[in-house]
Amino acid sequence: MANTYCVGVDIGGTTVKIGLFHVSGRLEDKWEIPTDHADGGLHILEEVAQSIQEHVFQKGLSKEDILGIGVGVPGPVQPDGHVEVCVNLGWMDIYPAKILSQLLGGGVECYVGNDANVAALGEMWQGGGKGHDNIIFVTLGTGVGGGIIVNGRIVAGSHGLGGEIGHIHIREEEKEICNCGGTGCLEQVASATGIVREARRILEKYPQASSMRAFKTLTCKDVCDCAKQGDELAVLTMETCMRYLGWALSILTHVCDPQVFVLGGGVSAAGEWLTKLVQKTYDRLTPLLHEKPQVTLAMLGNDAGIYGAARLALSESKMSV
Amino acid sequence: MANTYCVGVDIGGTTVKIGLFHVSGRLEDKWEIPTDHADGGLHILEEVAQSIQEHVFQKGLSKEDILGIGVGVPGPVQPDGHVEVCVNLGWMDIYPAKILSQLLGGGVECYVGNDANVAALGEMWQGGGKGHDNIIFVTLGTGVGGGIIVNGRIVAGSHGLGGEIGHIHIREEEKEICNCGGTGCLEQVASATGIVREARRILEKYPQASSMRAFKTLTCKDVCDCAKQGDELAVLTMETCMRYLGWALSILTHVCDPQVFVLGGGVSAAGEWLTKLVQKTYDRLTPLLHEKPQVTLAMLGNDAGIYGAARLALSESKMSV
Repeated sequence: MANTYCVGVDIGGTTVKIGLFHVSGRLEDKWEIPTDHADGGLHILEEVAQSIQEHVFQKGLSKEDILGIGVGVPGPVQPDGHVEVCVNLGWMDIYPAKILSQLLGGGVECYVGNDANVAALGEMWQGGGKGHDNIIFVTLGTGVGGGIIVNGRIVAGSHGLGGEIGHIHIREEEKEICNCGGTGCLEQVASATGIVREARRILEKYPQASSMRAFKTLTCKDVCDCAKQGDELAVLTMETCMRYLGWALSILTHVCDPQVFVLGGGVSAAGEWLTKLVQKTYDRLTPLLHEKPQVTLAMLGNDAGIYGAARLALSESKMSV
Repeated sequence: MANTYCVGVDIGGTTVKIGLFHVSGRLEDKWEIPTDHADGGLHILEEVAQSIQEHVFQKGLSKEDILGIGVGVPGPVQPDGHVEVCVNLGWMDIYPAKILSQLLGGGVECYVGNDANVAALGEMWQGGGKGHDNIIFVTLGTGVGGGIIVNGRIVAGSHGLGGEIGHIHIREEEKEICNCGGTGCLEQVASATGIVREARRILEKYPQASSMRAFKTLTCKDVCDCAKQGDELAVLTMETCMRYLGWALSILTHVCDPQVFVLGGGVSAAGEWLTKLVQKTYDRLTPLLHEKPQVTLAMLGNDAGIYGAARLALSESKMSV
């Protein structure tokens, strides 16, 4: 049956995840291959093409069955599909979608997007944002990333900076320099790294006892666990960090006004306790909204990328019909 | 000739502006009627319909010639065209586009949008954002409004709050309450009203001489003029206010990443001197951008609304084909 399936490819620094989906959103099969860093990442797309041949086309599906293939890459993607640089893969100046389509011998449309944006699309399709088409997805991991979905489509931006929520300047008094070269970025305070740093600062500043002091190497999970148990300095840390996140989300409402915010990444494992903390500041800073959008949790975990890449193929191919 | 023209209607608190446009963007005719506040604004759309009959259909054009009619209204518009409340007009709970279409006897598609969003579309079409399809328009007047255009379409938001840039929380230490019920909104510091308030605060705080002290009733234009002449406290005022605006624009880049920012409204009459001041902070807070988008000036003045309303009809009717 023509155009019944789509393929989602999520290229990460360590592994490439690939999923075969029914267009209804049902995951039919998923597998992964290691990311081949040799020769500046030159072979990554060759191996992706080969893997799709083996897992899809040599198992009974023809090119006519595949509506399209979406690819998420860990770097900014220009509106024309150009990837100037992708540090984690070693890529410079390439058009991944065009190349993958050529490697497959043509006849299958390929589409490319930034991995965080694509993951947002996945969470909209079958995750925490299911049922909505205006969502904002924020990943709280080592860094802070995000994706803005308006009317079911990624806001990629004119330089590929759409949804780069982690580098919103939010903390004026911050002195340390962020990875991006700026200061006071959301990522510096709301990522796992940022939360631990804030905890250390607070432990240094205040003399009182804290269960956080017992950890040799304090992790973000430790801070969250201590805060949940009522440790005063851990609570102060999390309230400080999540106040900035709530503030950032309130700004996003006055820009894009989504139906729902979806939080993912390692930090979001702290669960509803965390979303409630974020929602507190968010609600206070959105007095124009009578019904507040929910701050909710991502549901697809590491599969968000393949879901979203498949959904990208689905929506982009519809647009080009 | 079928579908050669479109009509733009800009409903304001004092007058309703109406323009007849060729679909190429050429303004063929424009006129205005007073806004009739009687009976809770009940007659406004009746009078708009009558005026369109007289100026368009009784002058040789038929309904087939008109691609559509766009209407900008001074209040939030829900995604389905519902206007819950429009304080300046007295409207409650109405669907202006449906009503206007009925009043014209059907056969002409009508579309409605928030006036600031619609003006953004106008500036994209034939104004300061011409040639681009990802722009952010900010009006600096009595308040601060705005419109976000992504891929040529308004980001209206799921509660009509899309582009409500004036109510971005940006100044944490602000104590006064904003019209919206919040505190520290961009509007409180970057509107004409906000600039004058900031000047007064600075005049109170610092003892030194300032030419601003000579004005009985200080206006925003006075503050700008004094600053341009190098008056130290006026410069401090404008630097403070425009730093917040530049900061807000830098945030917008990490959300929507537009090609250009267009500044309109009374404050923007200060010209390139003002955009340079804004650009200074903006450039500093967008280290990820090698090529900075321009902060430029609006070009359509009070006509932005009719241009944008006509463009709304043009783009929405294309979408529905």
